[in-house]
Amino acid sequence: MKQTFITDAAAHVDQVVTMKGWVANIRSSGSIAFIQLRDGSGFMQAVIVKSDVDEASWELVNKVTQESSVALMGTISAHPKKEGVFELQVTSIELIHIAEEYPIGNKEHGPDFLMEHRHLWLRSKKQWAILRIRDVVETAINEYLHQEHFIRTDSPIFTPNACEGTTDLFPVPYFDLGEAFLSQSGQLYIEAAIGSVGRCYDFGPVFRAEKSVTKRHLTEFWMMDAEAAFVEHDENVGLQEGLVKHIVASCLKNCTKEFEILERDVTPLQAVVDKPFTRYTYTEAIEKLHELGSDIKFGEDLGNDDEGLLTKDSDVPVFIEKWPKNIKPFYMKIDPEDSAHVLNDDLIGIEGAGEIIGGSQREDNFDLLLERIREDGLDEKEYSWYTDLRKYGSVPHSGFGIGLERMVRWMSGVAHIRECIPFPRTVNRLKP
Amino acid sequence: MKQTFITDAAAHVDQVVTMKGWVANIRSSGSIAFIQLRDGSGFMQAVIVKSDVDEASWELVNKVTQESSVALMGTISAHPKKEGVFELQVTSIELIHIAEEYPIGNKEHGPDFLMEHRHLWLRSKKQWAILRIRDVVETAINEYLHQEHFIRTDSPIFTPNACEGTTDLFPVPYFDLGEAFLSQSGQLYIEAAIGSVGRCYDFGPVFRAEKSVTKRHLTEFWMMDAEAAFVEHDENVGLQEGLVKHIVASCLKNCTKEFEILERDVTPLQAVVDKPFTRYTYTEAIEKLHELGSDIKFGEDLGNDDEGLLTKDSDVPVFIEKWPKNIKPFYMKIDPEDSAHVLNDDLIGIEGAGEIIGGSQREDNFDLLLERIREDGLDEKEYSWYTDLRKYGSVPHSGFGIGLERMVRWMSGVAHIRECIPFPRTVNRLKP
Repeated sequence: MKQTFITDAAAHVDQVVTMKGWVANIRSSGSIAFIQLRDGSGFMQAVIVKSDVDEASWELVNKVTQESSVALMGTISAHPKKEGVFELQVTSIELIHIAEEYPIGNKEHGPDFLMEHRHLWLRSKKQWAILRIRDVVETAINEYLHQEHFIRTDSPIFTPNACEGTTDLFPVPYFDLGEAFLSQSGQLYIEAAIGSVGRCYDFGPVFRAEKSVTKRHLTEFWMMDAEAAFVEHDENVGLQEGLVKHIVASCLKNCTKEFEILERDVTPLQAVVDKPFTRYTYTEAIEKLHELGSDIKFGEDLGNDDEGLLTKDSDVPVFIEKWPKNIKPFYMKIDPEDSAHVLNDDLIGIEGAGEIIGGSQREDNFDLLLERIREDGLDEKEYSWYTDLRKYGSVPHSGFGIGLERMVRWMSGVAHIRECIPFPRTVNRLKP
Repeated sequence: MKQTFITDAAAHVDQVVTMKGWVANIRSSGSIAFIQLRDGSGFMQAVIVKSDVDEASWELVNKVTQESSVALMGTISAHPKKEGVFELQVTSIELIHIAEEYPIGNKEHGPDFLMEHRHLWLRSKKQWAILRIRDVVETAINEYLHQEHFIRTDSPIFTPNACEGTTDLFPVPYFDLGEAFLSQSGQLYIEAAIGSVGRCYDFGPVFRAEKSVTKRHLTEFWMMDAEAAFVEHDENVGLQEGLVKHIVASCLKNCTKEFEILERDVTPLQAVVDKPFTRYTYTEAIEKLHELGSDIKFGEDLGNDDEGLLTKDSDVPVFIEKWPKNIKPFYMKIDPEDSAHVLNDDLIGIEGAGEIIGGSQREDNFDLLLERIREDGLDEKEYSWYTDLRKYGSVPHSGFGIGLERMVRWMSGVAHIRECIPFPRTVNRLKP
C-alpha cells in the first residue's frame, strides 16, 4: 500500500493508511504501546492497543528497538484537544529491519564522537530540524531572486586565479595546464554573466584553505553570489534587506515544528520581517563602538566582539556601509563623494549571528579598475577577461554574497556552524 | 527612474518608462532609427524618430556602437498585428558607456576563439537562450522534487574515497589529513541523509578527471542525485519519468522565446510530456539492437551508437533496466528474481540526447553489501560508515542521478555540452 507521509496526516484523518518510518521511541505498559514514528517528513505518535491488533503485531511491540524500521497500518485520528496533532491508531505492524543497539543513545556525546557518526547523528531530532531549515532557506533564496528577475548562472569551481588575492587557496593539479584553484567566490564570473542575462546568481560550494578552528569556519561551505546590472549601492542594500526578510518570513511560515524542536524562541525574528534594518556608515559604526567602550581603531576591520557590541541592543540587522578603501578588495567602487571609502556594505545579523552578507557596487570604469588591480599587486593579464567587461558597454552594477551556513546557523539558533551543513569539512575533519 | 524590464512590457503598454540595456543592433535611415535593445530579460525594438527626440538624443543614434549600454526613455506600444510583441517609442536617450569595437562580430568564429571569449560570448542570443533554459531546468528540478517530498541536502565535495572506484579522481592536498578527492557523486551521502529526512537530493558540481575530449564530456559538471526511503525499483523509475516530464513541460511553458532563438523545433517534446516512456530490460534492449543490426555482445555496456539506434524510432525516452550485475557498481541491489542482474535503470533521451539519468534500487542488506564491496576489491573500512546504514533500521531505498548539462543540451538542441554551462571546464580549458 502506498506510503502516507506524516506531514500529510491532516488530509487523511479517519482514513486507513500505511505509514513507514523508523522507531524514534517505544514504550509499552501491558496492554497498550506507543511508538514515536519518524518518517523524515515529521514525527507522529502511533498507538497500539493489544486487543486491536493480531498476535504477530503485538509480539513485534516487544521486539522492536530504537531506530528499527517498520510499516504501520492503521487509521489517522486528530488529537481531541491539540490542533495540528494527529495519532495513528494501529491495526497491524510489519517489521522492515530490526536495528542493532544504536550508538547514539540518550547520554551526552562529545563533538568528536558525533562528528565521527555524522551519518547517524543526522537522524537526531535537532539535526533533522536543522536540515529542514537549511532546505527552506535555500528554497527562499531561489524564490526571492527569481521574483526580482535574477536567473541562476552557476560559476565554475576550477579557477585559474583567486577572487580576493592568493592566500588560503586549495590547489589542484589540472592535466597539462598546471594548477587549478578551487573557487572562493563566483563573483567575477557572474559579473560577466550580467552582460547576458542582466541579473543573475550562483549558489554552490566554495572553499577556503584557512587553518582557522572556530565555531564559524568550514573549509567547504555554500555561498550564494548575486549580481545585477544597473543597480547602484542603495538599491543593492535594498535587495539584500528584501532577501533577508524573505528568508526569515519563509522560516517563520514553514518551520514551526523545527523551531519547537530546537527550542528556538522566534519572537525576535518578527521584527526582522517587519521593521527596516539599521544603516550605519563605517565611520558612524566606529564612533558608536567607541561610545560603547570598544578600543577599535579607525581603519581596522570589525572583530566578532565589535559586531556583537554593535547589534546587542538592536532588534533588526545592521548594515555597515562605505568602508575604508584600503581594507577592501580592488573591485569595489570608490564612493564618488569620498575617495577614501568604497560603496560596499556588510550586514550583521542580530542574536550573535555575525556577518551574514557582504556586498558592494563594483568598479565599472576600466582605468580605475586597472589602477586598483595594479595597486594590489595582482597580475593584470590574469584579469584581462574581467577588465574586458569594462570595455564593451560597461554598466553600473552591484552584487552581494550570502553564506548559507551562517544564515542557517542564525535561523536555527545553534552554536556551531558544523551542524548547519549535512557533512561538515573542517581542518581536522574529512570523514565520513 | 526605475528600470522597467523588457519581460514586463505587457504590463506597461502606453506607459512612460525607462529601459536600460545594451545595443544588440542599431540601424538608421535619415529621420528614423531602430535599436534592438537587450536587457537580459529579453529583446525589444526601440524606435527613435528624429522629430520626436531632442538634438542630443539624435546625435547619440549616430554615435552608439554594438554592445554600448544605454538608458532609453519612452512609451511602450503593443505591435498592432503580432501578439506579445512590443516596441518602445523613444523620447530620449542617455548613453551609459560607449563600447569599443566588439570582438565577436557577425562573421563565423572558431570554437577556441569563442571559448577564449566566453565572458563576452555569453551575450550572444543563442548563449542567452541556453543560460535561461538552464535556469528553467534547475528550477523545474527543485520544484518537482519538493512536490514529491524531497528536501535538499547538499553532499560534500571533499571526500575521503570514491563513489565508483578510484579512477579519474582529482586529488587535493588536505592539511594534515593527506589527500581529499573531489566528489564524483553525492549518492552515498544522501543515502545516509534519508535516515533523517526520508527523501532528499543534492544538486551541485561533481568532477571527473577523465581525459575524454568529446561533445559530451566536461571535467566539472552539475549533477542532481535524489534518494528515497521505502521506494523500490518500479516506483523509482516512475519518479524519474515524472521528473523528466515536469522538466520538459516547464521548458515548453517558459522558454518559447528561447526555443525560437535556438530554432529548436519543439514538436517532438510534446510526446515526452504526454506519453508513457518505453521500458526495455537490458536483455530486451540487446535483442532489439541485434535486430537493428548492432554487433553489441550480451554483457557489454551500450555505446553512443547503440543508444542512438535504440531510440531513433521512439517518440519517447527509453528506460533500459536490470543490467548485468558485473558491469554495474557494488551498491546496486541484485534482482531477487534473477541474481545475474541488478535493479537499475538508465534513461536514454530522444533526439540523440543520450543517457540522461542513471538510477537503481540500492542493496539494503548488510551482508550482501559487504560481499559486493569485497568482490570489487574496495577497502571495507573506508565504507564502514556506509555499511553502518544497513545496521540501524535499514530500509528498501532507491535513487537516481541526472546530469544537468546533458538535460540542458537535449532541451536546447545544441550539439556541444560546453555551451550548456556558463564557464565550461574541459581537459584543455581552465579559462576564463
